[in-house]
Amino acid sequence: MTTRINVGEKVLKENDRIAAEIRAELSRKKILSLNLVSSPGSGKTSLLERTFQDLKDTIPMAVIAGDVQTDNDARRLAAAGATLVRPIVTGGACHLDARMVQQAMTGLDLSCCRVLFVENVGNLVCPSSYDLGEDMKVVLISTTEGDDKPLKYPAMFRRSSLMVINKTDLLGHSDFDLERVKDNARRINDKIGILELSCRTGAGLSAWYDWLARTVDSKQRRASKGA
Amino acid sequence: MTTRINVGEKVLKENDRIAAEIRAELSRKKILSLNLVSSPGSGKTSLLERTFQDLKDTIPMAVIAGDVQTDNDARRLAAAGATLVRPIVTGGACHLDARMVQQAMTGLDLSCCRVLFVENVGNLVCPSSYDLGEDMKVVLISTTEGDDKPLKYPAMFRRSSLMVINKTDLLGHSDFDLERVKDNARRINDKIGILELSCRTGAGLSAWYDWLARTVDSKQRRASKGA
Repeated sequence: MTTRINVGEKVLKENDRIAAEIRAELSRKKILSLNLVSSPGSGKTSLLERTFQDLKDTIPMAVIAGDVQTDNDARRLAAAGATLVRPIVTGGACHLDARMVQQAMTGLDLSCCRVLFVENVGNLVCPSSYDLGEDMKVVLISTTEGDDKPLKYPAMFRRSSLMVINKTDLLGHSDFDLERVKDNARRINDKIGILELSCRTGAGLSAWYDWLARTVDSKQRRASKGA
Repeated sequence: MTTRINVGEKVLKENDRIAAEIRAELSRKKILSLNLVSSPGSGKTSLLERTFQDLKDTIPMAVIAGDVQTDNDARRLAAAGATLVRPIVTGGACHLDARMVQQAMTGLDLSCCRVLFVENVGNLVCPSSYDLGEDMKVVLISTTEGDDKPLKYPAMFRRSSLMVINKTDLLGHSDFDLERVKDNARRINDKIGILELSCRTGAGLSAWYDWLARTVDSKQRRASKGA
């Protein structure tokens, strides 16, 4: 088992090296990068679809969409108006790693974009360990999944800067308690930002768009200072 | 990377060896073993809770409940009337492996039980690769997760004998199409059994109980012939 751990550490170290290259490149181009993580079916693709439909004329955005199999999401996102879309089909792997993202970025002219979304594989465990060169992780949780998920999958919530609670239109159809999920998330990460919305009804989306615009501006300012 | 693959293969081979030991022991004791897999929040624990509440006087059942963190599920299942409950907290690992199950079985007197449920970590990817000595995998999918999941996570649906569609009470609140998810599952695995139910309302549970009783009987007959 010692061998396995050492090999795993080497893989993660190599991943971090590539992630740092991605981070430097995106900062040079003043592009905000958000790594979207969640269980399968929490609504990562739906949130991006709505975001592209509503903001495509305001903020040019690119997306790298990862899936174990199929490029369904990438096709949905292209139809929704993303400026640039690149699928990654992992062919079995349970998470994206920095090398996959770097390869997907090859030949992708991001110079016109201000945001790069990376839609990770639907998995609340493994993607938490892999830095993809993002500015921050955004974790989605839907109201149909149970409000104890932050406690059961703590690494993901500890490493995320924002928790988006999706499917608020389904509140009341389960025992999911909005205050309890917030308390649980804050017990794991007292700095986590929290937004509530429904991609289906549109409720709460404006607060997400405001957050996104503010975060894009803040990235532009930081990147300009750093340059 | 070659080294890593070799180490991974060795780990899987060792896992299969232990899984075979578990399978032999459970067959000797004529115990049906079901490995429950799904995304986080699809309702594995809820299904087991209902099953224990309704069948505890008919079929003695044990459960090994895995979670990345917390023993919440094990406590819920003990309260619901499982004959024996043993938690596994993986402390970060994204799946159960056969060694964890064998360790959890140590000192657990299963002789009175006819079913051992293993509730895996909520994850549609990694648990598909690990044989836990079960007779079959049962995959849950809820109607709030999207009907394309069998195509996006094919390994899990290919290796499962039964797909349980949970949260049918929420049909109509999303674009989830019952016929489409069945078609998608059968495209991946044309032998997969399919049940629809709602743990919340109880609709469809009797068909699950019938399936379980039939499968327990069939295991008893096969194990008796083998003995």
